[in-house]
Amino acid sequence: MLVVTTIKELTQVLAPYRSTNQTIGFVPTMGALHAGHQSLFSAARERHDVVVVSIFVNPLQFGPGEDYETYPRQQSLDEQVAKESGCDVLFCPTVKEMYPSGYPQVVHVKQGADVMCGRSRPGHFDGVATVVLKLFSLIQPNEAFFGEKDAQQLAIIKQLVKEFFLPIIVTGCPTVREEDGLAKSSRNVNLTAEERRYAPVLYEALQKAKASRKRDTSVLVSDVLATLTSIPVGEIDYVEAYEYPSLKKVNEANALVIVALAYQFQKARLIDHIVIDFNN
Amino acid sequence: MLVVTTIKELTQVLAPYRSTNQTIGFVPTMGALHAGHQSLFSAARERHDVVVVSIFVNPLQFGPGEDYETYPRQQSLDEQVAKESGCDVLFCPTVKEMYPSGYPQVVHVKQGADVMCGRSRPGHFDGVATVVLKLFSLIQPNEAFFGEKDAQQLAIIKQLVKEFFLPIIVTGCPTVREEDGLAKSSRNVNLTAEERRYAPVLYEALQKAKASRKRDTSVLVSDVLATLTSIPVGEIDYVEAYEYPSLKKVNEANALVIVALAYQFQKARLIDHIVIDFNN
Repeated sequence: MLVVTTIKELTQVLAPYRSTNQTIGFVPTMGALHAGHQSLFSAARERHDVVVVSIFVNPLQFGPGEDYETYPRQQSLDEQVAKESGCDVLFCPTVKEMYPSGYPQVVHVKQGADVMCGRSRPGHFDGVATVVLKLFSLIQPNEAFFGEKDAQQLAIIKQLVKEFFLPIIVTGCPTVREEDGLAKSSRNVNLTAEERRYAPVLYEALQKAKASRKRDTSVLVSDVLATLTSIPVGEIDYVEAYEYPSLKKVNEANALVIVALAYQFQKARLIDHIVIDFNN
Repeated sequence: MLVVTTIKELTQVLAPYRSTNQTIGFVPTMGALHAGHQSLFSAARERHDVVVVSIFVNPLQFGPGEDYETYPRQQSLDEQVAKESGCDVLFCPTVKEMYPSGYPQVVHVKQGADVMCGRSRPGHFDGVATVVLKLFSLIQPNEAFFGEKDAQQLAIIKQLVKEFFLPIIVTGCPTVREEDGLAKSSRNVNLTAEERRYAPVLYEALQKAKASRKRDTSVLVSDVLATLTSIPVGEIDYVEAYEYPSLKKVNEANALVIVALAYQFQKARLIDHIVIDFNN
């Protein structure tokens, strides 16, 4: 596996693959790699000649007071994980490399960013869309893989590709969970021992809502809220329910509904969601 | 010359050029083609195997109350001009084709859009950058050609390409003028006969400022304003002077300075500029 840090090296490394028409599968990450990322690498490995992974903690997608500084960084461990997962090229640029002139032009997400994480993290998805467009432009993959855990991000990236006519397939891969149900996340390492014990309640609350099969989305939301209130540490950021994948408001569900939540622990804000099918 | 209106056709038409590694020169236009556009076509023709021209009056770059509705449209005449200029592919998409989902995500220009036309036309350069990024993505040219007349636009497109790492050379071509000095513009056809008689004063005012070689930019600006005030029709939109190409404020010029203006006639808002070299 080749590790490159500059755009110049990246271009040189990818040139022979391009000239021989080998297909590129790409997984953009912020590092602190876990089994969720590995499932993306495996999907890319299965379907493509070359697997490119990027590790870049993107400052533009963090708001003031968010955890840009404390986001876990573990470069050498990540290199080992990527290598063992069969990645061919690992691209780890600096902030200066990705944003040589600051932020003179960005992608502004005008639709789909006014709910859920978009509302509680203003500007977050502009940052995500901007860096992903830059990475897509540099790597020109045939297919890019994202975790379904970040459901809103996945929807926005699909829209980005559609909107700017990028010749890239965007594929979502299922959320990978710990045995107790907690969704794998790089931020889990920032949980205290006590918080870690309570963290599985997030998914339990969602599963209970799913099992209830209540069609009234306000009841779904208040049921989840009631369960989360039992956690004695941290704070609820949001619990919201929408028609899926449109993320439009719906009172009485009769198709797919997403129930999504964000929970702020001391140093880790965790998100999770569940999709309920009311079609039948 | 092939005229295509859909992205599907465009992709099909360009495929054989791409697969044989022919170079593509691209000229995006809003139609109402004139000698200024033809100079861009010639430059593209000289340097590339294939010349692609787009005609698209981009609604996103027009503000409320601007001239989107009255912007000149002359499809069959334009086809003839493009053909005679040696263009190979003319792409004339509908608004629905370019914006199938409205404007869910756009390029937001955060730097360089707070002066000149950016200030008097808020959102204009977001619209320009968005449509150009879309067209670049569809056509994937090796080189794209823009008129230097739209100096601020050219600077923002260069920034766009740099910022999103697009493998495209952006080339500016000199302003083409009528014999009396008026810069060629599609909007000139919307001048009344009387306005057309006064329109050359715009360039005269700029030339006088250049000849004066006054280093004080506020004096340069007030001299141009004084000349423009003599025009009995229409209204001054702005006259501004900046360090060039940074577009930063400068009081006493000692390098390149751009003096730029916009003038609002009844149905045509015209722009022009001049660059003065104070290096020597």
